[in-house]
Amino acid sequence: MKKVELLDTTLRDGAQSEGISFSVRDKLAIVETLDGLGIPLVEAGNPGSNPKDLEFFREVRGLRLKHARLAAFGATRRPGVSVADDPQVRSLVAAGVPVLVIFGKSWDLHVAEVLKTTPDENIRMVRDTLAYAKKHAERVVYDAEHFYDGFRANPAYALSTLDAAVEAGADVLCLCDTNGGRFPEEIAEATKAVRERFGSRAAVGVHAHNDSGLGVANALAAVRAGAAHVQGTLIGFGERCGNANLATILANLQLKAGYACIPAAKMAGLTAAARRVAEIANVGLADDQPYVGTKAFTHKAGMHMDGVRKCSASFEHVPPESVGNARRFLISEIAGRSAVLARIQRVAPSVQKSDRVVDEVVASLKALEQKGYQFEGADGSFELLVRKALGTFQPHFALEHYQILGERPAKNDQEGASAIVKVRVGNTTEMTAAQGDGPVNALDRSLRKALERFYPALAEVRLTDYKVRVLDGNRATEARVRVLIESTDGRAVWTTVGVSSDIIEASWFALVDSIEYKLSR
Amino acid sequence: MKKVELLDTTLRDGAQSEGISFSVRDKLAIVETLDGLGIPLVEAGNPGSNPKDLEFFREVRGLRLKHARLAAFGATRRPGVSVADDPQVRSLVAAGVPVLVIFGKSWDLHVAEVLKTTPDENIRMVRDTLAYAKKHAERVVYDAEHFYDGFRANPAYALSTLDAAVEAGADVLCLCDTNGGRFPEEIAEATKAVRERFGSRAAVGVHAHNDSGLGVANALAAVRAGAAHVQGTLIGFGERCGNANLATILANLQLKAGYACIPAAKMAGLTAAARRVAEIANVGLADDQPYVGTKAFTHKAGMHMDGVRKCSASFEHVPPESVGNARRFLISEIAGRSAVLARIQRVAPSVQKSDRVVDEVVASLKALEQKGYQFEGADGSFELLVRKALGTFQPHFALEHYQILGERPAKNDQEGASAIVKVRVGNTTEMTAAQGDGPVNALDRSLRKALERFYPALAEVRLTDYKVRVLDGNRATEARVRVLIESTDGRAVWTTVGVSSDIIEASWFALVDSIEYKLSR
Repeated sequence: MKKVELLDTTLRDGAQSEGISFSVRDKLAIVETLDGLGIPLVEAGNPGSNPKDLEFFREVRGLRLKHARLAAFGATRRPGVSVADDPQVRSLVAAGVPVLVIFGKSWDLHVAEVLKTTPDENIRMVRDTLAYAKKHAERVVYDAEHFYDGFRANPAYALSTLDAAVEAGADVLCLCDTNGGRFPEEIAEATKAVRERFGSRAAVGVHAHNDSGLGVANALAAVRAGAAHVQGTLIGFGERCGNANLATILANLQLKAGYACIPAAKMAGLTAAARRVAEIANVGLADDQPYVGTKAFTHKAGMHMDGVRKCSASFEHVPPESVGNARRFLISEIAGRSAVLARIQRVAPSVQKSDRVVDEVVASLKALEQKGYQFEGADGSFELLVRKALGTFQPHFALEHYQILGERPAKNDQEGASAIVKVRVGNTTEMTAAQGDGPVNALDRSLRKALERFYPALAEVRLTDYKVRVLDGNRATEARVRVLIESTDGRAVWTTVGVSSDIIEASWFALVDSIEYKLSR
Repeated sequence: MKKVELLDTTLRDGAQSEGISFSVRDKLAIVETLDGLGIPLVEAGNPGSNPKDLEFFREVRGLRLKHARLAAFGATRRPGVSVADDPQVRSLVAAGVPVLVIFGKSWDLHVAEVLKTTPDENIRMVRDTLAYAKKHAERVVYDAEHFYDGFRANPAYALSTLDAAVEAGADVLCLCDTNGGRFPEEIAEATKAVRERFGSRAAVGVHAHNDSGLGVANALAAVRAGAAHVQGTLIGFGERCGNANLATILANLQLKAGYACIPAAKMAGLTAAARRVAEIANVGLADDQPYVGTKAFTHKAGMHMDGVRKCSASFEHVPPESVGNARRFLISEIAGRSAVLARIQRVAPSVQKSDRVVDEVVASLKALEQKGYQFEGADGSFELLVRKALGTFQPHFALEHYQILGERPAKNDQEGASAIVKVRVGNTTEMTAAQGDGPVNALDRSLRKALERFYPALAEVRLTDYKVRVLDGNRATEARVRVLIESTDGRAVWTTVGVSSDIIEASWFALVDSIEYKLSR
């Protein structure tokens, strides 16, 4: 099997993404996640431009890694300075890692306009820095920044920078589409030219960006043209539109193109690793990410669900299990009866397609969707609906009355809203009140307060997401709103829904379902 | 210049995306947005599978479109049924639009396993349905579902389905990578084969999906191989990982590959159109979307900012203005300044770039954006902000106090909420109260009631849209919410915004701006 070496740069190029800021602890957790997935090279920082990275490199050497080797990233020496006197190069070496990645300029425009030096001095900068790095590391990668743009503008000069790197001992010539502007055929042509000229002396690599929506395609085009090293970030973090998405590239190469990138047994860990990186970075993983997103194997159209049930390849390009993801069928008016049955069977496996309860659930669904309910994102409420139709639902409490008050300006530094709730559990009623930052928050707090006395397990429930969708906005403030609430008890996660023309009442319905769902388990 | 015809299917394939659910009004607004951008074909629905779409087609015929022609989408007739007796085909024709898109099966696996019919009957289904459609429409597109998978599995059969479509009069043979699993080189090869065989009799098109992260690349590969019709969704909505992103394809083709897709003068409207579609769908546009995302030209690394300042091409593949987007530097607002100036000049044409008021508006904008405000969709509030900075804003009333009350169950069949409002106009205070269907509605009614006494012109103002976006949903019911309100007095339309962690207060801010905007004109 052909091999391609992957380098993940989530911690370096990925950290240049707006909204991403990693603590040392976050970085260590990401290194462990990538190692656990079997990624062979992890570019972990830029110690010359970021002094905090040097601290991190000291700590990361304490991790016991099974698969990943660490790389540090830095620039060629400054113009007119001896390499051993350049503090940036020195701190790069001081990182003490086995792999060094040195980037230099290959586009003459950058040499003249950005570096403001001569073409010859730039070449000496490449040669000197690579030779120095080679003395201090086991393996040296030359990142030819803007190579593809430079090759297009002035191929002879772009290639001469690679000459210098190879002469100085570079193990990998990694060609970069730094601005993300090139097309796959341009990438293929330039990569092929480099491979033909240097293939016997150094490996060729590719570093692509997604500014033209072609990050993955460009990396694959380079591999087809002979590249054996691919840089990217596991879930696509990076400057502007992001780096090439390494999870997608990995799955494409290993599941479809016959390349070995990570140990075969690790492929099923891909989705979990991607979600873990998103969680560490505290961002939501885009739900439509190829292979690993929550929507990647989600079917909404009835025809697609029907097709997948008859033969999974009919609407799935790979089996979801192959990357550790799962198939989902959405419940919606586009979905048919058999999708509803499949969901009912998760709650009550013995139910058959011809059972009356299926008709009842379908009828309830239709009636509720007509009112503006939507169950595709509300598993918790859907399960309660099924239990009600099956006759196995027993409510754990009943609302007697709630009242909310809000005012502005708020009095005496108090929160601007309060809620009074009266609930009945069995034969006991409980009335309580709470303040909050807005009436929904006050209602949420007082409902929990009232029920915790009866159900101490509710203390571990937290709401983790709150979404509002106005359904018929043209009715303005009389419009119906749909509220979705996501809750967790630290183990399970469930979502519930409420609809009303009163946003407080819609929130109330979703809150009640959330609590009933928890108590019914 | 070579031409490529774009078909946007946001309203059909895009609506099959999880979490997307368009009202009739949403759909009309999307048609208008696509038309305004100059998209020539808009696939607006599937009337045979979704009866609500038929209603919509009746309404949409009332729009005056300048560029877009409407298309309806449907399947080939059912096996064993005469085409004129198939209600699905009949409702497709009943949509009364000039372009019909008929999809059929090209992959023998689907014919046997999903349709459960014979290969020959499937071919008759294609021929009959296309011939029938051709009689009722000006232009007929044959969507060869799963063509690329089918061509790989059984090329002779896949091509024979196209034979049937061409014999029946199809104007376009649109080849689909329905599962999104194919690589660009496979797409290119198959497209070329079809082009060679049918090129003189029908145009060739491509319909790609993004399951392998290659949606855009596959569409471009097909165009290089001779396709002259490209289907996608403007911002990538669609089943699973989405359809090929049409905004990205359009910008790549028109700005870089020398194709004409929309009128050249419309290209600068791309970003606004993409953001408008996201707003209508009530989803956040992914900030890293190529060309149109807020991060697409955002620079974070100091080296990149320095480079861009010296020479924009150094880290930007195209000028951001070419697609109506803007450059952002994360630590300085230098680039934002001229965009703000342009907006200020709409209110006060004499203001110059060096005037202090520009700094003041930039500073206010930054502070408000930090709090979650967004003025892109809130012209009315932005104009008030500018007037405040210019010192020309005189408030027409001041809030003394408001109080809202809500309760469930509601008493004696009354509406469930009421609001008390006390406002001051000059030296007079007015206190009034109103009930409403929810507290926001009650507040809206009582505020107008209080002010109409002073400003009778307010009687003609109506709110026409109300939108709520939860900004930090993971803080659950404590999250901040942004409320957008659209108002009209029958002549002008304006939009205002309010942000608070209390939805009532956020709505209040937007209501107050709406009224002040009206009174300031």
